[in-house]
Amino acid sequence: MPETSPHSAGINDGTDTYSYLGPAGTFTEAALAQVPEAQGRAWRAVNNVGEALADVADGRSVAAMIAIENSVDGGVSATQDALASVPGLRIIGEYLVPVNFVLVARRGTTLDDVRTINAHPVAYAQCHLWLESALPDHGHIPATSNVTAASTLLENAAADAAIAPPGIESRLDLVVLAEDIGDNPNAVTRFVLVARTTSIPAPTGADKTSLVVELPEDRAGALLDMLEQFATRGVNLSLIQSRPIGDALGRYRFVIDADGHVLDERMADALLGLRRFSPKVQFLGSYPRADKQPIEFTSRYDDEIFIEARDWLRGILGGEPEA
Amino acid sequence: MPETSPHSAGINDGTDTYSYLGPAGTFTEAALAQVPEAQGRAWRAVNNVGEALADVADGRSVAAMIAIENSVDGGVSATQDALASVPGLRIIGEYLVPVNFVLVARRGTTLDDVRTINAHPVAYAQCHLWLESALPDHGHIPATSNVTAASTLLENAAADAAIAPPGIESRLDLVVLAEDIGDNPNAVTRFVLVARTTSIPAPTGADKTSLVVELPEDRAGALLDMLEQFATRGVNLSLIQSRPIGDALGRYRFVIDADGHVLDERMADALLGLRRFSPKVQFLGSYPRADKQPIEFTSRYDDEIFIEARDWLRGILGGEPEA
Amino acid sequence: MPETSPHSAGINDGTDTYSYLGPAGTFTEAALAQVPEAQGRAWRAVNNVGEALADVADGRSVAAMIAIENSVDGGVSATQDALASVPGLRIIGEYLVPVNFVLVARRGTTLDDVRTINAHPVAYAQCHLWLESALPDHGHIPATSNVTAASTLLENAAADAAIAPPGIESRLDLVVLAEDIGDNPNAVTRFVLVARTTSIPAPTGADKTSLVVELPEDRAGALLDMLEQFATRGVNLSLIQSRPIGDALGRYRFVIDADGHVLDERMADALLGLRRFSPKVQFLGSYPRADKQPIEFTSRYDDEIFIEARDWLRGILGGEPEA
Amino acid sequence: MPETSPHSAGINDGTDTYSYLGPAGTFTEAALAQVPEAQGRAWRAVNNVGEALADVADGRSVAAMIAIENSVDGGVSATQDALASVPGLRIIGEYLVPVNFVLVARRGTTLDDVRTINAHPVAYAQCHLWLESALPDHGHIPATSNVTAASTLLENAAADAAIAPPGIESRLDLVVLAEDIGDNPNAVTRFVLVARTTSIPAPTGADKTSLVVELPEDRAGALLDMLEQFATRGVNLSLIQSRPIGDALGRYRFVIDADGHVLDERMADALLGLRRFSPKVQFLGSYPRADKQPIEFTSRYDDEIFIEARDWLRGILGGEPEA
Repeated sequence: MPETSPHSAGINDGTDTYSYLGPAGTFTEAALAQVPEAQGRAWRAVNNVGEALADVADGRSVAAMIAIENSVDGGVSATQDALASVPGLRIIGEYLVPVNFVLVARRGTTLDDVRTINAHPVAYAQCHLWLESALPDHGHIPATSNVTAASTLLENAAADAAIAPPGIESRLDLVVLAEDIGDNPNAVTRFVLVARTTSIPAPTGADKTSLVVELPEDRAGALLDMLEQFATRGVNLSLIQSRPIGDALGRYRFVIDADGHVLDERMADALLGLRRFSPKVQFLGSYPRADKQPIEFTSRYDDEIFIEARDWLRGILGGEPEA
Repeated sequence: MPETSPHSAGINDGTDTYSYLGPAGTFTEAALAQVPEAQGRAWRAVNNVGEALADVADGRSVAAMIAIENSVDGGVSATQDALASVPGLRIIGEYLVPVNFVLVARRGTTLDDVRTINAHPVAYAQCHLWLESALPDHGHIPATSNVTAASTLLENAAADAAIAPPGIESRLDLVVLAEDIGDNPNAVTRFVLVARTTSIPAPTGADKTSLVVELPEDRAGALLDMLEQFATRGVNLSLIQSRPIGDALGRYRFVIDADGHVLDERMADALLGLRRFSPKVQFLGSYPRADKQPIEFTSRYDDEIFIEARDWLRGILGGEPEA
Repeated sequence: MPETSPHSAGINDGTDTYSYLGPAGTFTEAALAQVPEAQGRAWRAVNNVGEALADVADGRSVAAMIAIENSVDGGVSATQDALASVPGLRIIGEYLVPVNFVLVARRGTTLDDVRTINAHPVAYAQCHLWLESALPDHGHIPATSNVTAASTLLENAAADAAIAPPGIESRLDLVVLAEDIGDNPNAVTRFVLVARTTSIPAPTGADKTSLVVELPEDRAGALLDMLEQFATRGVNLSLIQSRPIGDALGRYRFVIDADGHVLDERMADALLGLRRFSPKVQFLGSYPRADKQPIEFTSRYDDEIFIEARDWLRGILGGEPEA
Repeated sequence: MPETSPHSAGINDGTDTYSYLGPAGTFTEAALAQVPEAQGRAWRAVNNVGEALADVADGRSVAAMIAIENSVDGGVSATQDALASVPGLRIIGEYLVPVNFVLVARRGTTLDDVRTINAHPVAYAQCHLWLESALPDHGHIPATSNVTAASTLLENAAADAAIAPPGIESRLDLVVLAEDIGDNPNAVTRFVLVARTTSIPAPTGADKTSLVVELPEDRAGALLDMLEQFATRGVNLSLIQSRPIGDALGRYRFVIDADGHVLDERMADALLGLRRFSPKVQFLGSYPRADKQPIEFTSRYDDEIFIEARDWLRGILGGEPEA
């Protein structure tokens, strides 16, 4: 059963609670720690993305922090599919957490003693090279989270060591056998904060819009047509991920992050084009980018250009002679 | 000086006058005869397209009939350039006139006597094959209109025969030496009726929209970008004609006829896209097609699709949760 | 250490061995059972995709069967990434295996007794709905394969039941508590047979070509440009999957299955266009489709059309006058 | 009957003769004067483009100089249509002639005396502004060439003045009443030298390729498809002109000048794509540009890129493992 963390302050009617993949110490908790509004509120550790989104959908939490993409491992399928299937949710913020790992063990264990390792499968995959070289003959026991992998060491002796997030030794009575064991020193995980609110964060000039789009039919060029809706309005994509719809092989929906805000004229127009192209398009939100990098686009797609064109057309329809 | 024809009925303050390329008997007059509203009004015969459009621009005429395209000879450049440069004009109707020719001469002349032929250059070109075969050694004197070519025969003897529209023998004291001498039996000329009004004829489902578009810059793919504005909205083009802007070789504007009416959602959206693409786009009018052929387009571009998309976006922006 | 199965017949120098994700009883073994050439050879059960491909790359096996896509769960990232990074491999065949699951337990256990379930994460996810409804309060212990999930029940009592492939009860001393517990009755997994050979299976008219393409630069429209290489040659895609390159967020390579064979003119030309577009394109093979569905394409992309065009150009370059 | 000019030197069996629109003094003659190979040969003045091309087709001339585009008036339709319909011709060179005009008259005439003007219709149109302002009440008699317009003044008194090329006063006993009367001081006419040879001038890096392409069918997007054949190979167009095929309204062929030489890989590939797209494509020649401006294109379309791609594909088909 999920527990609310000591961050909790005051009554817990859901409007004051944030859900995240627990237990305390996970990268998800580190992402939640970046949210100013979440400070001093109740933090509710849950077991998986589905639970986190259900908390929001059912009103038990005001928002949930969930991992959506990893620079090494790619899109988090479970998150993408959940966002596509739970209605009424909106992404309201994006957060980046550098991802690195340590190998921890019970006091008294040395690296030479390690035969079997507890590790979450994603973490395990990301430490592949180090493990190959340092512990070529180890065995692997999968865990449900990076923190659980470590804490299980204290419960039973099935494994000798665990892959865990840095800092775990301050929470659990374990020793660090090796640091920086991730294969990619630049690895980073992208998290999103999901809420039930339908009010959209104001544009900042450095925004992102997330969508799920199902191709309207299985014909050659449907994907091309979809992408042109963005390209012809100068909207760049930072993520495109195909996900099976699930009813048959070869049928996909696409999870898309597009540069810009729905209140930008070019994005609004792209969404109109997209919606006409496919009735099955889901708006997941417009929100500030974690990297605060302003969106670049050619002046051809400025808001004024759109407004001028509308004024021009209105003039034609309204019977004004052209200048 | 232009003369108003016996069609005239009542005062001639311009609101009651139609201009056309005269003199009486031209194909242009035949086009004007197809306009119900022009019956019983004053018809003003002018010498060229520039004069006809100036009549409209200056209020001397309520409308002018001008040739815009010939199935054999192509777009009438003078008309296209004039429409592109005289502001405030609108095409309000389209008319087709089959084009054929007769060879006429003064009484007493036989085909064997013919050495020199009066002919408007376009008519001359369209009878090329017949002339090559029947009169291989003839000379050519250019004329300013098909009717003038014939009437000049009665003024001087520089030419022995003239190429003229069928029926000319009922107006002028001439004999027909040969009929159906045009190379292409299906030749047809397309005329448009141009007015200063800014009210747009109501959509009929079989409409055409005429535009002049200047490419925004001389870069690879600009023409492609322009055409995509139509293609991505399912709008087909029935005419595209490049015309030099005139300031340098290789700089063009395009005269375009697009299938559909500006009050069709897909056309309005294409015009918005076009205007954003190039500020130099000129709307020449939406009007019923002469051939009354209903416009075909896939249901993907139905008006309702556009309206639904707008409602959907409005819902998002207005804070409604998605269904 | 991997074991070779009783299918083994004769010496095992690698030219006679097929690797697959074991142990016996997995869906991967069911896929391998569909390969006529593999009958009567040694079957080598390995622990993961990386091991299977290493067997092939190092010559320990002549081929390896690996799962590449699941109709519910999507592309198998590990397989896609491994194929993209191990050079010299080719896909030579494709196989489909319907995927369903049973819940098994030690003799004497009833459904009411089940508190904790062993399951491979993918299988667990695919039985989500049934588990929610039949066992809402269960716990989950991850396993490394569907067969291991079941066999572990016989080794320790940490779990009460396991999700396993149908038929497991004939191999292990377990009872079936529930059948057909997968959420999607049409679920199917797609497997490919990977070899080191560079000879390409002959075209059958029902072929598939697999590629990995890295976008050449991070600019708007690069993906669009890539897709146009296929679209302008009438080549349809049955799979497109973005995978992070791994060096930074937002940098992707694409795993692609295209309809047709590299010996089809249109496909060869698309590959040329693709290679010019990006030097980082990897050809993974052309091979018969598992569903034997002939590829449909408009006659505009027939082989003869390509050959005629080449002949025409050769005529021009060779100085022949055009017909 | 055409006359051969005093440039003539030696026997006139056609291999030594150049045809041009005469008489001597025309802009076409000025273009021919730019051709080194034509110096010291026979120059044959003809009456129109058709005659000039027939001279070449029938072997009476080795080449013909013809006007193909005017910066003010656009493509010369007669030339474009003739090139599209006479088989076996090739453009082998391009020449530019600045176009300006003078007003000439018989000795003793002053500007105030001018009532009627002889002028070729194109020249007349290009002096429109000056005539409007200086001689608002004049009449116009059409002439078949700019030189004829002037020489006719000496034959009869139907006109008082003529529009003619600068320098005409050195050939004919006339006086210049006004200079630089063309509306556009930068007006230039583009000429091409047409031969029957099928050997293609060597690439210079500053070349042009001329084509005539008929759209394969009357469907939305056919023109777009055609243009993409160039765009996807980085080939820019310097001319695109629609011409009616002549069989029905709305049916067009396109006259195209593309930047580059058929021996450039990207152009050869574009021609292959074009020929597959439409069997009705006519190659009119690759030849050095008159302006000697080197063609710019991104390195993505370098010859080596094409060659590398072919080598790569050959490696795949030939059974070589990929590097």
